[in-house]
Amino acid sequence: MFNIENLIEDALREDLGHGDITSLSIVSRGTKAEACIVTHENIILAGNFIPELLYRKLDPEIKITCYYDDGDHINSGSEIIRISGDAASILMGERVCLNFLQRLSGIATYTAKFTEKIKGFPVKILDTRKTTPLLRQLEKYAVRMGGGHNHRMGLFDGILIKDNHIKIAGGVKEAIRRVRKNKINPLLKIEVEVRNLDELRDAIDGGADIVMLDNMGVDEIKKAVSIAKGRVMIEVSGRITLENIRDIASLGVDFISVGAITHSAPSADLSMEIL
Amino acid sequence: MFNIENLIEDALREDLGHGDITSLSIVSRGTKAEACIVTHENIILAGNFIPELLYRKLDPEIKITCYYDDGDHINSGSEIIRISGDAASILMGERVCLNFLQRLSGIATYTAKFTEKIKGFPVKILDTRKTTPLLRQLEKYAVRMGGGHNHRMGLFDGILIKDNHIKIAGGVKEAIRRVRKNKINPLLKIEVEVRNLDELRDAIDGGADIVMLDNMGVDEIKKAVSIAKGRVMIEVSGRITLENIRDIASLGVDFISVGAITHSAPSADLSMEIL
Amino acid sequence: MFNIENLIEDALREDLGHGDITSLSIVSRGTKAEACIVTHENIILAGNFIPELLYRKLDPEIKITCYYDDGDHINSGSEIIRISGDAASILMGERVCLNFLQRLSGIATYTAKFTEKIKGFPVKILDTRKTTPLLRQLEKYAVRMGGGHNHRMGLFDGILIKDNHIKIAGGVKEAIRRVRKNKINPLLKIEVEVRNLDELRDAIDGGADIVMLDNMGVDEIKKAVSIAKGRVMIEVSGRITLENIRDIASLGVDFISVGAITHSAPSADLSMEIL
Amino acid sequence: MFNIENLIEDALREDLGHGDITSLSIVSRGTKAEACIVTHENIILAGNFIPELLYRKLDPEIKITCYYDDGDHINSGSEIIRISGDAASILMGERVCLNFLQRLSGIATYTAKFTEKIKGFPVKILDTRKTTPLLRQLEKYAVRMGGGHNHRMGLFDGILIKDNHIKIAGGVKEAIRRVRKNKINPLLKIEVEVRNLDELRDAIDGGADIVMLDNMGVDEIKKAVSIAKGRVMIEVSGRITLENIRDIASLGVDFISVGAITHSAPSADLSMEIL
Amino acid sequence: MFNIENLIEDALREDLGHGDITSLSIVSRGTKAEACIVTHENIILAGNFIPELLYRKLDPEIKITCYYDDGDHINSGSEIIRISGDAASILMGERVCLNFLQRLSGIATYTAKFTEKIKGFPVKILDTRKTTPLLRQLEKYAVRMGGGHNHRMGLFDGILIKDNHIKIAGGVKEAIRRVRKNKINPLLKIEVEVRNLDELRDAIDGGADIVMLDNMGVDEIKKAVSIAKGRVMIEVSGRITLENIRDIASLGVDFISVGAITHSAPSADLSMEIL
Amino acid sequence: MFNIENLIEDALREDLGHGDITSLSIVSRGTKAEACIVTHENIILAGNFIPELLYRKLDPEIKITCYYDDGDHINSGSEIIRISGDAASILMGERVCLNFLQRLSGIATYTAKFTEKIKGFPVKILDTRKTTPLLRQLEKYAVRMGGGHNHRMGLFDGILIKDNHIKIAGGVKEAIRRVRKNKINPLLKIEVEVRNLDELRDAIDGGADIVMLDNMGVDEIKKAVSIAKGRVMIEVSGRITLENIRDIASLGVDFISVGAITHSAPSADLSMEIL
Repeated sequence: MFNIENLIEDALREDLGHGDITSLSIVSRGTKAEACIVTHENIILAGNFIPELLYRKLDPEIKITCYYDDGDHINSGSEIIRISGDAASILMGERVCLNFLQRLSGIATYTAKFTEKIKGFPVKILDTRKTTPLLRQLEKYAVRMGGGHNHRMGLFDGILIKDNHIKIAGGVKEAIRRVRKNKINPLLKIEVEVRNLDELRDAIDGGADIVMLDNMGVDEIKKAVSIAKGRVMIEVSGRITLENIRDIASLGVDFISVGAITHSAPSADLSMEIL
Repeated sequence: MFNIENLIEDALREDLGHGDITSLSIVSRGTKAEACIVTHENIILAGNFIPELLYRKLDPEIKITCYYDDGDHINSGSEIIRISGDAASILMGERVCLNFLQRLSGIATYTAKFTEKIKGFPVKILDTRKTTPLLRQLEKYAVRMGGGHNHRMGLFDGILIKDNHIKIAGGVKEAIRRVRKNKINPLLKIEVEVRNLDELRDAIDGGADIVMLDNMGVDEIKKAVSIAKGRVMIEVSGRITLENIRDIASLGVDFISVGAITHSAPSADLSMEIL
Repeated sequence: MFNIENLIEDALREDLGHGDITSLSIVSRGTKAEACIVTHENIILAGNFIPELLYRKLDPEIKITCYYDDGDHINSGSEIIRISGDAASILMGERVCLNFLQRLSGIATYTAKFTEKIKGFPVKILDTRKTTPLLRQLEKYAVRMGGGHNHRMGLFDGILIKDNHIKIAGGVKEAIRRVRKNKINPLLKIEVEVRNLDELRDAIDGGADIVMLDNMGVDEIKKAVSIAKGRVMIEVSGRITLENIRDIASLGVDFISVGAITHSAPSADLSMEIL
Repeated sequence: MFNIENLIEDALREDLGHGDITSLSIVSRGTKAEACIVTHENIILAGNFIPELLYRKLDPEIKITCYYDDGDHINSGSEIIRISGDAASILMGERVCLNFLQRLSGIATYTAKFTEKIKGFPVKILDTRKTTPLLRQLEKYAVRMGGGHNHRMGLFDGILIKDNHIKIAGGVKEAIRRVRKNKINPLLKIEVEVRNLDELRDAIDGGADIVMLDNMGVDEIKKAVSIAKGRVMIEVSGRITLENIRDIASLGVDFISVGAITHSAPSADLSMEIL
Repeated sequence: MFNIENLIEDALREDLGHGDITSLSIVSRGTKAEACIVTHENIILAGNFIPELLYRKLDPEIKITCYYDDGDHINSGSEIIRISGDAASILMGERVCLNFLQRLSGIATYTAKFTEKIKGFPVKILDTRKTTPLLRQLEKYAVRMGGGHNHRMGLFDGILIKDNHIKIAGGVKEAIRRVRKNKINPLLKIEVEVRNLDELRDAIDGGADIVMLDNMGVDEIKKAVSIAKGRVMIEVSGRITLENIRDIASLGVDFISVGAITHSAPSADLSMEIL
Repeated sequence: MFNIENLIEDALREDLGHGDITSLSIVSRGTKAEACIVTHENIILAGNFIPELLYRKLDPEIKITCYYDDGDHINSGSEIIRISGDAASILMGERVCLNFLQRLSGIATYTAKFTEKIKGFPVKILDTRKTTPLLRQLEKYAVRMGGGHNHRMGLFDGILIKDNHIKIAGGVKEAIRRVRKNKINPLLKIEVEVRNLDELRDAIDGGADIVMLDNMGVDEIKKAVSIAKGRVMIEVSGRITLENIRDIASLGVDFISVGAITHSAPSADLSMEIL
């Protein structure tokens, strides 16, 4: 939690610098106000704890009421959050508060479009490490709120042998062997990215727990599933779109990872209004 | 510069945590490699200094060669940057390096789409404060690389009287009066956001230097220009798209601000490959 | 606000290190005390929020009562602030609390000597960037409390073309042209430092918003005013003293900047006494 | 050393924020320049390492040459330091560099005025904890360069029983007794502030190593010296001026502490000029 | 790497504060010295990179030569590391350098005593989270140098269901079910701590990947192995000593975790000597 | 205090990273629990403030009750601290809380074994700078709880001339002379480490306040005492054990310093149990 509090403090510092010179000039001390955050499109909410954490830093007397839980679907035009207290404090926090909420709800909303598409199939949408620098923990949280699942958080909490590792090791089996012989965390599974069916077989033989089929076409994925099913978990990755995801989901894979849900989600259209 | 270096260090820390356990297991110490960053779409480059700053933190022996300047148009398929040195170090920095470059080049590329549309008109595209928390300085840099101009950096280096301020002050003129009487930085102009022509006239009478026409239609903007032209600078803001920007540009305004160039720019499609 | 809280925490850390070994040895746990901060000269108060922020870090149970507002004139011998609570906590914060208050009130008091001198003239005293490293925001606040006005906060929130820039650009007009063509914040005015009447004319022609007359004599300032008045704002700078400021103020300039109010203000003579 | 480097980095961040927008607009990339720091009054130099540390952060290619050692007396008009390299980098660091140098040399110069006065007497000028928040280490260094000596650095590296402690303990002897029985660092002496001859006798009897005669007149100091000499070290403190210090020095005391050398030293008059 | 550099910088700051007042007084500027670090007992070395990182912060001109690799067995009396350069810099870093090296080598040496005992059995010694606050990454590295293996780094990179979790969930199976249904990292295995054979069977049925037999006696471990072998990995934990570890190793378990190797390893007896 | 709060926050960050993924999956929101910290051996408690500071960061609603004061002797099997509140919060803090408490109580307990041995002699046990990096302030506190006394905190608050200084200065007297002539804090005594009786005599003649007899045998210490007693304080140092400390104490020395009480104290055997 203090990670996120520090992040919010740094973001406030970025926007406020030595002070909100406009509001401090205009708003007389002691002026009270009430404001609401409203959505101008249908969204899945993520980040409803942000206003609370943010305004506690600016002014602990500000009162926040959230009308929705994270993960809720909210219709365009709805009021999401009510903020009341010192008017200058409310204005000072407005933009940073919205910047967080719009990005996180944008990610949750966009993720939900993908999870909607695969309804009925026992497959999970995974995120990737293609997140905004410094916001990964929050963005991965937003993915969960949109119905997605998280892949590893970073290079430190998951073993994923990628094509570049395989090139350097000189082959899939050798790469797996090197990982196994190291003195690392026995609680970690081994995932291997494979580019063709030969590599897939090598990964299974070598003892992979999960394979990632990278940028394969539908036919190749089908073959891969028939080889791998029941022996290792299968993740499909690469150029997944809202158009092609349902077809891939129908092939019987376990996970589909989608970079776009974090790196290219459009911002949710929210605003804050003084009442 | 050290602001950006600290940012990159924090981003590396976010991804690496206690270490890249896959690469450290697979890549034998002393293994050298050469890698390139390639674009898979036409882009405007922004952030070519990122690899240099990033790898200097991970491993000062890594050598970086950039083939392009920031602001350059680069064709799909081109190699942008060459990286050579210790293989494990290269792999450790890959994702964070790309996350920065893809976002910044994405913003520059998207901004350039807007600046392209207004060619021939003496109007400037401005960014907003709708940026990613903690990345504002970099994102505003990317806007410039895409041909856009920067509005203020934060609440501290520009006076912008918005609708919420006007509500609280009880009117445009009173809001301007309060700002003028304060003991602030004489190097700052005063901008006022106006929602209709009456507010526009008040802003001009009150002594605004710039007016922002907020969410006005084309006809109202025309009238506003005829009132304001030559007396104050004019900025148009609100729901600007690639479709409507040229029409607005033709009306004789000075600035058009576009939140989407930072908050909703899709990530540029780049990858790093070990050669 | 958290900027100043961090500053105070660092200042406490500087003085306390691993602990106030004298007070911890002498003051029995649970001993209560009451203390007051008294002034031993006539002052303008600045920084009355410091004790509150400082003791909240050391011991949130300490109670603070301020008898004056910042900006108030206080007579020698008056009690300014009452502090009550744990005796050891009070003693631990004493020196740091006074160091801040004495410097800030010293600046406010010294500034007021200058503002007193120019009474009746429509000119403003400005501060400069000649402030104590890390204390600029506080010192500029103290200037305002003494009746002065703030110039820019740093290199980032104001454009001031100085003699060194003019040398490098090769002339006043070229320097202004370069600034105009860059993609910077349209909310910023352009100020130009000029050393003679030719440069003054160039600055006006080039489109400066403000000119700074640097180290000119009274006669030259007079001529400058007659050229510039009504076309640009005029700031006078350089070797201003309590002796010569009224003469300069009478010449019809808009601003007079005085470095000494921050860099050479004597400390206000305050002390804290246990009652 | 890294303490001071961090301090300088923070000071640069305070002044530069997101960038020196004037210099970055005017100075073409690659422009080289040479600058010198000159003094406009006779000074004792302190802080000649500042430019080196500061410019190393901004631009490691900048070359610095110092013509004097800290502690040197330098005549008005002399060039002290030569700086050459990238013109924009030089300009960006100018003000912060001077702010440090002017304050430190101001302190050294003012301290030297006091040490000059006591020439011939075996007494030492001591500083106090009345320093600028966050600059204590540097300011105490400047005191040494001016010929003064340092008292303790903070509350953590010296035991000084002051009047407030004595009040709380209920007497000088009890205060000393409490310190002795506590488990503190055996490498620390015990100093006691006394307000009259009775307290002085108690301090000596109690086992003080040093006594501080607080705000005593010349006659009382004389008596105190006759009581204390040879049994404890004697420090005189309180309202010492350039006028009265020689008289006090002649009384045979060991130390005279002067708060003004740090809290009210006027800034040294230095400037940086592009050649 | 920068994690460890920051740690070392903080440790230096802890010991040095505002300076090594003894060395700075005694060692004339420019004095060169040569020093060596010697061991006074047989050790397994860990942390040979510490002097390099540490002295680079204090004085980049110091030269370091390491005669051994981490993990090497070194005999009592051997010189391990040679340090040459500025004498004052060497002395300033001595204690912090040794404090790190003695702790890390102490852990490696103590770990090696355990790994020695289990030679010939296909079982691995694991560490725990019972490490020194802030030194975990280094201490776990030292465990590897002593021939041990690392368990998870923290609560974030491994799922370990402990007795307290089971109590709260109301049973082993329910606890596992809750973990499985969450949207977490698919690269993580699930380990379950079991206190008896019933819980063991539940863990296997519930789908655990690893079971930790907590504080079981030899007979119960035997039975557990016969139930679990081939279905899940087995870790034994609790009150493992140099006396009983070989017996447990012989029972066919996969891992034995030993808290004492980090929380109670005696410091290695090293010293630094000026030659 | 904020030093220690920062330390605890960093330690929590080290263990928690982006979250306790096990507890967050298993413990339903709103689940309450009560836990106790129990000792499994006889201990001297140190650090009873840790749970309060730690859980205030994780969850300010957690209630803590301590049944003992630091310095108390507690019997094996006793409950020391009761913790109640949100179950997930309690579990998240468990390990870090124990890691601090076990180390600090381990040090207090081990120190008490030494102080027990010297009962009846007017000698004090001193700690050294052989502490865990970053934990020195806490570890020295634990020493005091165990009945020991603190030597200097670092290189900055005590002058200790060691053999390496003497080598560089060229002799004991010259080393002392150099320290005396420097402008350091007059509140500091001078301690000199001596290796033989000649050096001892030089130290006394040179004006040392304390001498440290380094690694001398009982006979040599006896002679040293007969030379030094009454003229300087005497500290004995080097290879002190529970076996030999009483003999040394009986020789009439003032201080015995023991590195092992911080660098090799075994961890106290504590655990936290959910009730």
